[in-house]
Amino acid sequence: MNEWLPVSSQSGAGRLNDALRYAVFPGGKRLRPIFTLLGASLSGAHPRQAMASACAIEFLHNSSLILDDLPGMDDANVRRNRTTLHLVYGEGIAVLAAVALLNQAYALLVQSAVDAERPGAVEALMKEAAQCIGADGMIGGQVVDLGSAGNGSYTERLASRDLKTIALMRLMMVCGALARGADARDIEALAKFGECLGRAYQICDDLLDELGEMRLTGKPAGQDARHLRPNALAGMGLESAHQMGTRLIEEAKRALNERFGTRREVCLLAEAADLVIGEVERVGPVRRARVAQGAVSLR
Amino acid sequence: MNEWLPVSSQSGAGRLNDALRYAVFPGGKRLRPIFTLLGASLSGAHPRQAMASACAIEFLHNSSLILDDLPGMDDANVRRNRTTLHLVYGEGIAVLAAVALLNQAYALLVQSAVDAERPGAVEALMKEAAQCIGADGMIGGQVVDLGSAGNGSYTERLASRDLKTIALMRLMMVCGALARGADARDIEALAKFGECLGRAYQICDDLLDELGEMRLTGKPAGQDARHLRPNALAGMGLESAHQMGTRLIEEAKRALNERFGTRREVCLLAEAADLVIGEVERVGPVRRARVAQGAVSLR
Repeated sequence: MNEWLPVSSQSGAGRLNDALRYAVFPGGKRLRPIFTLLGASLSGAHPRQAMASACAIEFLHNSSLILDDLPGMDDANVRRNRTTLHLVYGEGIAVLAAVALLNQAYALLVQSAVDAERPGAVEALMKEAAQCIGADGMIGGQVVDLGSAGNGSYTERLASRDLKTIALMRLMMVCGALARGADARDIEALAKFGECLGRAYQICDDLLDELGEMRLTGKPAGQDARHLRPNALAGMGLESAHQMGTRLIEEAKRALNERFGTRREVCLLAEAADLVIGEVERVGPVRRARVAQGAVSLR
Repeated sequence: MNEWLPVSSQSGAGRLNDALRYAVFPGGKRLRPIFTLLGASLSGAHPRQAMASACAIEFLHNSSLILDDLPGMDDANVRRNRTTLHLVYGEGIAVLAAVALLNQAYALLVQSAVDAERPGAVEALMKEAAQCIGADGMIGGQVVDLGSAGNGSYTERLASRDLKTIALMRLMMVCGALARGADARDIEALAKFGECLGRAYQICDDLLDELGEMRLTGKPAGQDARHLRPNALAGMGLESAHQMGTRLIEEAKRALNERFGTRREVCLLAEAADLVIGEVERVGPVRRARVAQGAVSLR
């Protein structure tokens, strides 16, 4: 990933370059680029061909994390068990690093589509990316997080907020296939998987935000409550939220099965999707609730 | 320009949409999109075809102004004779509006190239855009403005800082031609014009920053000195700076003349370039210095 980093060759850009490395390395679980590589593989791409897309998705993700943590947004001090970037490098550099990662994501997505040499692929991919990032995608979701979302119902605000996660997970699943000009039915199945996974992921993230321990999540608990943001747990309770997450993961897996059968990538993607809900199930309160229902044993 | 604005269709996105309108309307002189339309016209585009590129350039420009004015950057209160965007809508919305405009600029540039239906044009344009915006272009220049530019000489820091203006003016001149897959010599001449104009524009901006009156510039004077930033006037003095600006404008015009002769667009671009240096020459101290040299009369 280092070779794709948008560092500057100017003599004076040391702090920006350092901030970019701080943002991307050592990184988190790298869940999103792994999903991208598997999604691309389903449309016939070799992992080497899909690496540019995978880095683009990871850069987009890291860009959004830098912005999320800014004082004007979540005002977070800790991310991935480290001091947040803007507290180390200042807000100015933080914003520029986020924009540089976004810009490089665009450059890498273009490159991935150009490399595949399918007519019309660049435009289809760019259109999807702009939609994903834009005011009805990640940026729109962040506006809701800011609490500037007006007077919609709790459920509406929750749905709008989820846009951010869902849009990126949709893009991460389809970008490899779009770059290769894959069959529309392939793209539809991958998009469905990404959207269901995104909704489930956001529910899990909400549960972890309220119930999780910093040791597991790498960030302080209770940030949603602190910012008066909608949260699935507060909105529908532990039981319903967990059930909905599980149901969405099943729906995601079914979408892939129906289109791609039981290919190796489908199995790997299903396992990765199970990990998302599995992370929640390791958390004390969720685990105890499930034990109380007899769904799992405590051992 | 209104129809291209990246507003959200979500019910809760009112404040983002308002901020986007505040950023783009009523706007400044619209110098950049006018240059883009003229540049595109030289490569044979009808103004209607080039409108998407022109809006993209104006959005990129406005995006960079929002970021420039943030507390973590220039911490400016006034822009275009109005309160800066972040003071009206908050920093969170300001950053998101800037990112939304950047994102929409990408979408519009892609659209402009797709509309022209020339093979390879999308990639060439996207590559140029990513280079223009990235760590060796606008973002790199902004890093220097932040004073994080390390220990280069004054001249080096001045040159790095100028990247921001030069990169965008280069893109504004070539984007229409790139979208149409124009001849490489056309693109080279347009790029040369944009780069020389950008350097001259930055010199003029520096002179206006030190000598200008808010009535003319729409922003407070002396911001470079306040932020200990390199400034052409401080670096080389009024006389040399003005001479260099004039020389660069001549070089810019010559590049177009040599490639495109005396076509109507060349004359219009030359007039527009003269306006850039002309604005400086209306400012009191520059005017008095030129009178002292006998270059102009005071009447």
